Amino acid sequence: MKAAVLKAYDPQVDARQWVDYEDVPDPEISHPREVIVRIGGAGVCRTDLHVIEGLWREISEVSLPYIMGHENAGWVEAVGSGVTGFKPGDPVICHPLVTCGHDLACRRGHDMQCEDQAFPGLTRDGGYADLLRTHERTLVNLPETLAPKDVAPYSDAGLTAYRAAKKAARQLVPGQVAVIIGAGGLGHIGIQVLRSLCAADIIVVDRAEAALKHADNFGIEHTVLANGNEVERVKKLTRGYGAEAVIDFVGEGDAVASGLAMTRDAGTYYIVGYGGRLEIPTMEMVVSEKSIVGNLVGTYPELVELMELADRGKVDLATREYKLADADQALHDLDAGDVPGRAVLIP
Amino acid sequence: MKAAVLKAYDPQVDARQWVDYEDVPDPEISHPREVIVRIGGAGVCRTDLHVIEGLWREISEVSLPYIMGHENAGWVEAVGSGVTGFKPGDPVICHPLVTCGHDLACRRGHDMQCEDQAFPGLTRDGGYADLLRTHERTLVNLPETLAPKDVAPYSDAGLTAYRAAKKAARQLVPGQVAVIIGAGGLGHIGIQVLRSLCAADIIVVDRAEAALKHADNFGIEHTVLANGNEVERVKKLTRGYGAEAVIDFVGEGDAVASGLAMTRDAGTYYIVGYGGRLEIPTMEMVVSEKSIVGNLVGTYPELVELMELADRGKVDLATREYKLADADQALHDLDAGDVPGRAVLIP
Amino acid sequence: MKAAVLKAYDPQVDARQWVDYEDVPDPEISHPREVIVRIGGAGVCRTDLHVIEGLWREISEVSLPYIMGHENAGWVEAVGSGVTGFKPGDPVICHPLVTCGHDLACRRGHDMQCEDQAFPGLTRDGGYADLLRTHERTLVNLPETLAPKDVAPYSDAGLTAYRAAKKAARQLVPGQVAVIIGAGGLGHIGIQVLRSLCAADIIVVDRAEAALKHADNFGIEHTVLANGNEVERVKKLTRGYGAEAVIDFVGEGDAVASGLAMTRDAGTYYIVGYGGRLEIPTMEMVVSEKSIVGNLVGTYPELVELMELADRGKVDLATREYKLADADQALHDLDAGDVPGRAVLIP
Amino acid sequence: MKAAVLKAYDPQVDARQWVDYEDVPDPEISHPREVIVRIGGAGVCRTDLHVIEGLWREISEVSLPYIMGHENAGWVEAVGSGVTGFKPGDPVICHPLVTCGHDLACRRGHDMQCEDQAFPGLTRDGGYADLLRTHERTLVNLPETLAPKDVAPYSDAGLTAYRAAKKAARQLVPGQVAVIIGAGGLGHIGIQVLRSLCAADIIVVDRAEAALKHADNFGIEHTVLANGNEVERVKKLTRGYGAEAVIDFVGEGDAVASGLAMTRDAGTYYIVGYGGRLEIPTMEMVVSEKSIVGNLVGTYPELVELMELADRGKVDLATREYKLADADQALHDLDAGDVPGRAVLIP
Repeated sequence: MKAAVLKAYDPQVDARQWVDYEDVPDPEISHPREVIVRIGGAGVCRTDLHVIEGLWREISEVSLPYIMGHENAGWVEAVGSGVTGFKPGDPVICHPLVTCGHDLACRRGHDMQCEDQAFPGLTRDGGYADLLRTHERTLVNLPETLAPKDVAPYSDAGLTAYRAAKKAARQLVPGQVAVIIGAGGLGHIGIQVLRSLCAADIIVVDRAEAALKHADNFGIEHTVLANGNEVERVKKLTRGYGAEAVIDFVGEGDAVASGLAMTRDAGTYYIVGYGGRLEIPTMEMVVSEKSIVGNLVGTYPELVELMELADRGKVDLATREYKLADADQALHDLDAGDVPGRAVLIP
Repeated sequence: MKAAVLKAYDPQVDARQWVDYEDVPDPEISHPREVIVRIGGAGVCRTDLHVIEGLWREISEVSLPYIMGHENAGWVEAVGSGVTGFKPGDPVICHPLVTCGHDLACRRGHDMQCEDQAFPGLTRDGGYADLLRTHERTLVNLPETLAPKDVAPYSDAGLTAYRAAKKAARQLVPGQVAVIIGAGGLGHIGIQVLRSLCAADIIVVDRAEAALKHADNFGIEHTVLANGNEVERVKKLTRGYGAEAVIDFVGEGDAVASGLAMTRDAGTYYIVGYGGRLEIPTMEMVVSEKSIVGNLVGTYPELVELMELADRGKVDLATREYKLADADQALHDLDAGDVPGRAVLIP
Repeated sequence: MKAAVLKAYDPQVDARQWVDYEDVPDPEISHPREVIVRIGGAGVCRTDLHVIEGLWREISEVSLPYIMGHENAGWVEAVGSGVTGFKPGDPVICHPLVTCGHDLACRRGHDMQCEDQAFPGLTRDGGYADLLRTHERTLVNLPETLAPKDVAPYSDAGLTAYRAAKKAARQLVPGQVAVIIGAGGLGHIGIQVLRSLCAADIIVVDRAEAALKHADNFGIEHTVLANGNEVERVKKLTRGYGAEAVIDFVGEGDAVASGLAMTRDAGTYYIVGYGGRLEIPTMEMVVSEKSIVGNLVGTYPELVELMELADRGKVDLATREYKLADADQALHDLDAGDVPGRAVLIP
Repeated sequence: MKAAVLKAYDPQVDARQWVDYEDVPDPEISHPREVIVRIGGAGVCRTDLHVIEGLWREISEVSLPYIMGHENAGWVEAVGSGVTGFKPGDPVICHPLVTCGHDLACRRGHDMQCEDQAFPGLTRDGGYADLLRTHERTLVNLPETLAPKDVAPYSDAGLTAYRAAKKAARQLVPGQVAVIIGAGGLGHIGIQVLRSLCAADIIVVDRAEAALKHADNFGIEHTVLANGNEVERVKKLTRGYGAEAVIDFVGEGDAVASGLAMTRDAGTYYIVGYGGRLEIPTMEMVVSEKSIVGNLVGTYPELVELMELADRGKVDLATREYKLADADQALHDLDAGDVPGRAVLIP
């Protein structure tokens, strides 16, 4: 099959080619409950840029060359002998994490903390390819309303945004305020999810006017341009208090300090984006009684819930399609900030 | 002042006059933190009919004659010497319960369980009158967008619907289903609140076509006419399982058994309306792991939250205005099922 | 193998023999993830009496003759080809429910609501036998401190008590009160679990002095003999309010009405025992804001948690051992109220 | 009256006298709901040392000279004209925060977020004196079992420990692990509270052998000496995973980084002590899904709950008594680490 292959980390992240489009062997089923999925679309994620930078090198323990791509949807191509719920041809989206199903975390419904997990596209070959090897436990059936190439990025970007927004929605009541920092690939989904799950006021902060304009379509209350005085602006919009919930889809640069500063006393700062550092005196945490919550992808049931929202048109994903052969271009465009919404590679 | 006065319970609830419109002495402030409110509107509630029937006689311990009316909004007329947050002329809606503020229930934010409470309109004179004596702790400032006569019924009917819908919303996720039984005075508010607080599918059940038609304006998924096979219909709409949450605004007649039967295993049946009986073998409760939750009005902060929703246009109250002099007519119309939405008495 | 077999329902529940001890074919593995367990002990449960009475006939859909016994522990005897986590000889306790692991309920950690489940001992052959067929997903490894015959009743009676007590503990704070109705087989475990999970005051209600005396060993605050004025006594011990949580392990006769009456406004009545009827006007539920919660067994992780408590000596199970050949005697003794704690059959 | 007065901040915190014991005017009631309390005991808190250091200068906005002391208990000496629930002679412990009772935070039971609050001892004169001016809303009646001088430190140190331990207990189940860092003044209370509120395993970490020895009386599972490899030790005791909850009563020096490192993925690190800095890459927060929660004192109902625990002997406070005249000595002893448990000043 064809695939876009990563052969070397590139700490400089310069202008040269990052992935090579070439022939590789087809993946094969190695366990009775595994499944081969023919890729309909594979989302391109900022995490892939972090992988190329080498940021995940020690955590993922993958050896190069390997195939990135952890946001996958398509059609079942082949199933192992023990697979009972799916058959070739079924349209599916793939939860990014392959989990064991046996340990206490899995049994409690906390897939993400499975002790025996794999993350195709991160810890082994992923979906920048014609075919993907994954496991029956990752598959969610797609309704006819949702084409694989249109929903692939929900499997990680969307799911991550969903999980964080769901946590925030659980804590918010009418009259309270949520700030969303970053209205890009994840953020624009997070905004729509939060809008559909609660009635709190939503303030969207971004440094791109275009992103704010796009966000304005989703029934939010305010947009704030991140031009250096965004904390002040949010404070003003919240009678000086800040927001009960701040969801930070950026997680680097000024966003972290700003996000914490925008958070009201007793409120919660949700970290989704990463790359920066959290730095705060413990005294400030104590006096303010703030909470800080890390967020990583979401559970299998949460992906099902997100597909229910998408099926009802309550969340709409902005995508830009690229041929799989143009994977390198897609990655460079993302790195340059030239992708509105989410890039999707189509074999 | 003028008031509509109840002089006798009437177990037969026949066609004669239930309340008399006549002159009564003005109420007077008897405690430094009390307040006199000039009524802008007083909601007429099914509970008032239950009072007339004598159903509350032993619980409320009020002695006749007295003035009903527990859904009040208007303008501050006079304040006691210890009142600091309000002044004459302020537009306000009155939380129905006068609470002490001192006991553990109040200190925990559970106003409704205050051990030293009064309920104007139920346990002492209420708002079917020009003036109402209440307490500073009951008052919520109204924004300019909300006129007292248009929001009065929120203070009890709306608040009760809000509290139940908020509890249900906390438990529901996308793809799950909520049934609302009864789309009348409380129900039509409950539907809108639930719609704004969660993304679950909503099925509205009512025996009046007109109520269902009205409900259809609120972005719900299905309506079901309660004509005897409503349980079957709801089951069919939920792949045989029933709904994760059922909010019963009727609470009498067939509604109770139907409501429980429509509730999915491990789901919750919220009782708001009353007049009937809950009867179920304990074995069914055990095998199904269902929960049954009683709901009474709501807390002061919940009334503030509801006003935030109303201020943003996320919930809209259908009212029919009557002159205070026509209170008796309003009560008879309500009893006859002739009031769409909620009747409001205007002095 | 040998087994105690039920051949006919007996609505009269008279003195004749209910189960026959005789030879039956060994169970066989029919699915790669199934397991055969050599029984070390099988708990005798009041539910077995209800089965004999015919109360479960329509719900369980089992055809006679069959083998009861849903509280099983022992050693792995044989494993299917797909079993990875267990090997012959492993000491195990069996979660009573065989669940699919695939559907949303299982994926959320809510095993009990699995849509494709079996309940050995209830819906197919159980553990009143030398050998039991069950599934890898039901097995919990036992530490060396816990012998199978000493812990078997935890798998259903203990687990059910644990789940209800855990729910109650989550809601209770110091200074609040929990009532436990019934200090027998389930109740004496529930008391110990509740004591170790919270610091609320515990009042134990039972109609047997011996049960109350046993309960007094577990660090509880009060015992109340159920002799007709137990509601009054509990009210007096709670300054007239009743208890924030009432866990009813009886669920029949007077217990249900008493249990509801002992529950404080805004409190919760947990139904665990069954056989009786819940009957209450909806108005009482509304005015009191009480909740009623059905409880059925518990999840697999909850069984793991209970074993952790047992391993630390925080809960101690009172058992009376019978030979499997004497199963009929054990059932009659239980029916006669002659079994303190929990009867266990040992092959 | 006599008082120990702070006249200057002392950034060097050297050996000279920090507070002066001298005559000052008696406090006077300035509002109908205020109360004068005759001090039975005033706890000496590490926060007082931070005040002397000048750490609170900008936050508290108090002007010198002033009287520290925010952990107060004693007897009601005089009451304002609007006080209804207390009379002279009543034994009381004072919640440290004077709150308004009106704003949404107070109405929701979140006293600590009151927008119009005072903190006697921190933002105005406190209890290092014969008499204290406070407000009816702060008073909790003491049962006969609890003498003011023996419980005073519960009002802040104890309450803070209680709140953090209660939060942790809510999240913990049997088989999970909690680490408590710091077994001193707050920590030794936190350990006992946690022990009584849940059945998780408790590991206590401290750099003083004596503190660990004291902790061993409270039914905990493990102690770990903080000598540089405490993270490793905790990891080893938790099969490499770390603890589901870490409560850090130190909050400075190595404790912060260690505390975060000891926290299991998806677990929570509760900050109570302060003085240090929280520093962690956002990527680590995301990958681990950890939460960080700031904790400040506790609510009035939580103080009531703690007194219920103390009344039942479930928590025992270690105190060392000093005469009020020796306040300066007590402060120096605390600074030198020479106070086991908690110092209390007695007028």
